Amino acid sequence: MSESRNQRLLAQTSQAWAPADVTDFGIGQPNDAILPVEILARAAASHFSQGLRYPLQYGTERGDGSLRLALGEFLSGHYGLDVDPEPILITNGNSQAIDLVCGALTKPGDVVLVEDPSYHLALDIFRDHQLRLVGVPVDADGLSIDALVEALDRHRPALVYTIPSYHNPTGVTLSATRCQQLVDLALEHQFLIVADEVYHLLRYRNDNNDPAPMAAHVGSGVVLSLGTFSKILAPGLRLGWIQAAEPLLARLAARGFIVSGGGLNPFTSALVAVTLSDGSVDQYLAQLRTLLATRVATMDAGLRAHFPADIGYEVPTGGYFFWLRFTDGVATPAFTHRAQAHKVGFRPGNLFSITGGLANHMRLSFAYYDIDRIEAGLAVLGQVIRTGS
Amino acid sequence: MSESRNQRLLAQTSQAWAPADVTDFGIGQPNDAILPVEILARAAASHFSQGLRYPLQYGTERGDGSLRLALGEFLSGHYGLDVDPEPILITNGNSQAIDLVCGALTKPGDVVLVEDPSYHLALDIFRDHQLRLVGVPVDADGLSIDALVEALDRHRPALVYTIPSYHNPTGVTLSATRCQQLVDLALEHQFLIVADEVYHLLRYRNDNNDPAPMAAHVGSGVVLSLGTFSKILAPGLRLGWIQAAEPLLARLAARGFIVSGGGLNPFTSALVAVTLSDGSVDQYLAQLRTLLATRVATMDAGLRAHFPADIGYEVPTGGYFFWLRFTDGVATPAFTHRAQAHKVGFRPGNLFSITGGLANHMRLSFAYYDIDRIEAGLAVLGQVIRTGS
Repeated sequence: MSESRNQRLLAQTSQAWAPADVTDFGIGQPNDAILPVEILARAAASHFSQGLRYPLQYGTERGDGSLRLALGEFLSGHYGLDVDPEPILITNGNSQAIDLVCGALTKPGDVVLVEDPSYHLALDIFRDHQLRLVGVPVDADGLSIDALVEALDRHRPALVYTIPSYHNPTGVTLSATRCQQLVDLALEHQFLIVADEVYHLLRYRNDNNDPAPMAAHVGSGVVLSLGTFSKILAPGLRLGWIQAAEPLLARLAARGFIVSGGGLNPFTSALVAVTLSDGSVDQYLAQLRTLLATRVATMDAGLRAHFPADIGYEVPTGGYFFWLRFTDGVATPAFTHRAQAHKVGFRPGNLFSITGGLANHMRLSFAYYDIDRIEAGLAVLGQVIRTGS
Repeated sequence: MSESRNQRLLAQTSQAWAPADVTDFGIGQPNDAILPVEILARAAASHFSQGLRYPLQYGTERGDGSLRLALGEFLSGHYGLDVDPEPILITNGNSQAIDLVCGALTKPGDVVLVEDPSYHLALDIFRDHQLRLVGVPVDADGLSIDALVEALDRHRPALVYTIPSYHNPTGVTLSATRCQQLVDLALEHQFLIVADEVYHLLRYRNDNNDPAPMAAHVGSGVVLSLGTFSKILAPGLRLGWIQAAEPLLARLAARGFIVSGGGLNPFTSALVAVTLSDGSVDQYLAQLRTLLATRVATMDAGLRAHFPADIGYEVPTGGYFFWLRFTDGVATPAFTHRAQAHKVGFRPGNLFSITGGLANHMRLSFAYYDIDRIEAGLAVLGQVIRTGS
């Protein structure tokens, strides 16, 4: 009894988990094999060789200064901006950052405009705070500004939540023009933009047409740019950041649990500061981009080879996701049962819609499986789809 | 400019900070020198030698199973109970645990009964959630049950927040009889008990009269027992736990930010699991108790030698604090200015009272300074007090 309980507990390691013989393209996270344990091991050895004790102490509310300094330099290089390290708050990762923003900057009943579709698990965080979600459509250039303007006729939102770069689930990126229009509307209508920029650094093209992050607009006073080490180093560190203008940052840092408990994750902050300063994150990120770009090409080839010719999709230029559009009338949830029987998986589009629409869409992630699994899995999933539900 | 900014950032390390020549007995946290960096360095080396990648992944919502298993064994030994490791949720430390409990188990406007006085920074967490605080007095046996019964005539609280062992700021411990009465009242009046047991393991006597923790009552279904590694290992890890009955734990683990981000701090969980399993925490805790017991004796001697004879206090048998009672009419805030001028500090009693009363009390912590600094500091503070404000 106790023996079986212990075995059960020891098996509780990671959150998403599929049996070894299942290829679930629904899993939107990196596989263990590409997580850089060697980098963290070196950083830990380097860190502890210095004998520093302060990272074991209650940290400053906005986070370890050495991490913020290193992060400012890192982001300045990658964003192509002069990123000021002072107005940065270190977070426990992006999900807790969204929770923190809701707690500090909204009140129950406030309206939050969200992209439809959007990252479904973020929507549950807003719901936790009794916020009213209103969807705004997304097209090839990201959040529809026309639809947003219409929504602003009917609602006075506290927040607009957007995933501007390599959107989850659609993969699209907000154009620079729309980015500026969104900021202008925020200033005019007095709402805040919560820019979930976690995929921004995961781009797979080198055509000098990289989008600028919403972080470029932090100085407007209406933008909170949320980033995370989960996508560029390791999710288990639970470490991220918020860039925002000083008055917003001060409100976040004044939350009771931060004042009481000190800055968020000082110990892991010290380790991650090492990985930024010694160039490990830069190197890892370059490898990761190359690796994921290869998977994108494999996905594209597999979709062309095995999926019906009438599905539509754009090859993503960053992020984790392909977003497939089936012909009208197809309901992708109908494939779920046979896919499971054939040991493959996906996420149906309606999962990401706040109205439950978009059932003729499908999200496939290439973050979790290597190219052999991707090729084999797409062949099976394509077969399932071609032969109907 | 940038140089001075960088220096300013690099100086942002720890939360509480007093100039080296100031002895601030107000600081209620351990000093850096006693934080066990060597233990964490060994744990990191041991952990990384195994090459495990799962702690870098999104973790299971309730926390790393190996940590919960090791923690269950650790608590079983120290609590003298059979602690079930399954109904444990790993947290980001106690302050975030309180925030999580408020978010998941209360709604704005709910009443929370709190000890008066209580840990002032916890009260701000409740206020963040728009909860209405009502104070219940504390005496030598902890929370007054008579006063609680009276309060229950007038209020239907969602929560009662208590620090049952070595209370902050008074140092008192809830008696076993009152503990049972509190649970009975919670069952009768349908409120939850949030037991902040962070000091429970820091006891300085060995008379076999250790109090039982409120964790012994988790099976009642109305108790949440909150613990933390901040007091027995290191605050900067931001790691703690909640024990509660399954229905409560399920509600906590279902919060959107946990479902989205995975379990809290999987990476540090894996390191801390090593420190529990190899006996390091047991050894460190034993040393810490001896060290802090010596400081208690030094504090007691210093107070007798240097403070007015008419102040009242009990020598604490655990925790971090002495709670001094001055004669009626004395207002300890009046000493603040002269204390600062003489480079000593304390916390006035009214800081901990939700009504702003108790100004004739003073909290002194012995966690931050070694015995030489304690002796010297109490001599100066006693002089300040004896010679008036």
